[in-house]
Amino acid sequence: MYYIGIDLGGTKIASMLINSEYEVLARLTVPTRHEEGEQSVIGRITGSAQHLCDSASVEMRQVGRVCVGSPGPIIRESGMVLDAPNLGWKNVALAPLVSNALGVPVIVENDANAAAVAENLLGAGKASRNMMYITVSTGVGGGLVLDRRLYRGSGGAAGEIGHTTVLPNGPLCGCGNRGCLEALASGTAIARRGQEIAHRPAGRGIAQLAVDGPVTAMTVAEAARRGDRAATAILRDAFEYLGIAVANAANLLNLDTVVIGGGVAGIGDMLFDSVRYEVRARTFAFVAEQCKIVPASLGADSGALGAACCAAGACA
Amino acid sequence: MYYIGIDLGGTKIASMLINSEYEVLARLTVPTRHEEGEQSVIGRITGSAQHLCDSASVEMRQVGRVCVGSPGPIIRESGMVLDAPNLGWKNVALAPLVSNALGVPVIVENDANAAAVAENLLGAGKASRNMMYITVSTGVGGGLVLDRRLYRGSGGAAGEIGHTTVLPNGPLCGCGNRGCLEALASGTAIARRGQEIAHRPAGRGIAQLAVDGPVTAMTVAEAARRGDRAATAILRDAFEYLGIAVANAANLLNLDTVVIGGGVAGIGDMLFDSVRYEVRARTFAFVAEQCKIVPASLGADSGALGAACCAAGACA
Repeated sequence: MYYIGIDLGGTKIASMLINSEYEVLARLTVPTRHEEGEQSVIGRITGSAQHLCDSASVEMRQVGRVCVGSPGPIIRESGMVLDAPNLGWKNVALAPLVSNALGVPVIVENDANAAAVAENLLGAGKASRNMMYITVSTGVGGGLVLDRRLYRGSGGAAGEIGHTTVLPNGPLCGCGNRGCLEALASGTAIARRGQEIAHRPAGRGIAQLAVDGPVTAMTVAEAARRGDRAATAILRDAFEYLGIAVANAANLLNLDTVVIGGGVAGIGDMLFDSVRYEVRARTFAFVAEQCKIVPASLGADSGALGAACCAAGACA
Repeated sequence: MYYIGIDLGGTKIASMLINSEYEVLARLTVPTRHEEGEQSVIGRITGSAQHLCDSASVEMRQVGRVCVGSPGPIIRESGMVLDAPNLGWKNVALAPLVSNALGVPVIVENDANAAAVAENLLGAGKASRNMMYITVSTGVGGGLVLDRRLYRGSGGAAGEIGHTTVLPNGPLCGCGNRGCLEALASGTAIARRGQEIAHRPAGRGIAQLAVDGPVTAMTVAEAARRGDRAATAILRDAFEYLGIAVANAANLLNLDTVVIGGGVAGIGDMLFDSVRYEVRARTFAFVAEQCKIVPASLGADSGALGAACCAAGACA
């Protein structure tokens, strides 16, 4: 039997065909072009699935299930995407629409949950019993595999570590709360702090690296790499808050592994050293000792690969 | 078949005999007297078990299993209590010792986990799929029932919401971290804040209620009930932090129910209103709507009853 995983993002649709041993037989990435409308995006999803089959000489009727990983909250039972701002979608019955077009069973899964499954099964969290996957990118998201099963919570929204409060009266978050991890440690938050200080003398090192455009999180990271003090302070603060949120999850869930991916995690040691320090400072010794903090190992593949694993029934 | 649950506390040992329908057939409470030593405490545990059987005309060989709920971290596999400061115990092989004396299989469980099972099965969290039980007393502890099973984490230490950080540079906690929920919202923390302000003019209302002894959390609660401003502010702050920790757990775990018990929860509406407000302010609307915040309904019974339910294999 074969399975297809599709990672539906705001800018691209990544897809993979795997066999029941989770071996990747074909992969494809196409632009999303959500501005062309829902039908057009669904056409590109079904077209991707057909193309994967063709390129691996697999017939669609040999595909046991397709899983689409979608941003935002979903309803599994009805295969509905509830609210995906990156796509401009609200209440789209994605699974039935794709299933009707392909003639194959289709399920939907939250994209961070799918990535968590991939990292748990085939990536940095391999062999972990209780792990959290965290993606630190434009936003901060996550997924939980507890007792070796994907944990979705009562409404499918578990894993929202990005909206846990780490500074009670901290900066306003896009979600309406103050002091969310996402408002303090996301790429967007790091960039904003860099932009703010770039106009001050202390921010000159950052400003000098951003002559061609606005200050981004990567500008701040590059300035920090060159030893700039303001940039270093911005990252140190952001990663301290990330470490607090991870320590809180470790205390609450006594995790054996925390896998951190996403663009900001690419900054590397400075992030991981901070997170490991906070976990050692803020949890009991045996909780800290049991909890590995590791970089994600599947990169941009994790979304589509995880969706394919979910299609194959992994971590169910 | 019958089952016995024993709640081993620092001051008393509460025990219950139930049948397989979780009906309570006998109950007993005796003092712990841990200062008389480990053997003596184990004698009172086995004596309690025997007394329960005698008073319900049940023979010990009809008891399928005994479960002892113990404070602090335990190792289930070996039935070991690792560290129970209230008893002065470290690495006590409790389950084998009790099992040898009674001739019945014995398991150990963390006491907050046992209480969580009782509230989930028979108390305020009945019918909940994903719930957290929190006890706010001298300390702050908790237990998680996720996907209808007791979630213990990788080393049996899950549920430690009392040591999640809710104020990064907050007051020092007994555990060595700063800004733990326990250091801000436990009965001990409320009493300490009351004692601090009692020496100031603003704290006169609190001081007047504590003529016979030190200021306790209950003194602060009574002063607040009478409209004292300082006492009200102390509780408002404590319960705000409790609400933040609960909101963080709700965001991370998309819970359907949070059950709050322990002496401090007896303060009532002021606590529950604050926690509900913070959850509504700090989680997505649909997460808040799904998450009931309710008082524990089993009171002091929950430890022994939960241990008995664990003995009967509930939530396993």
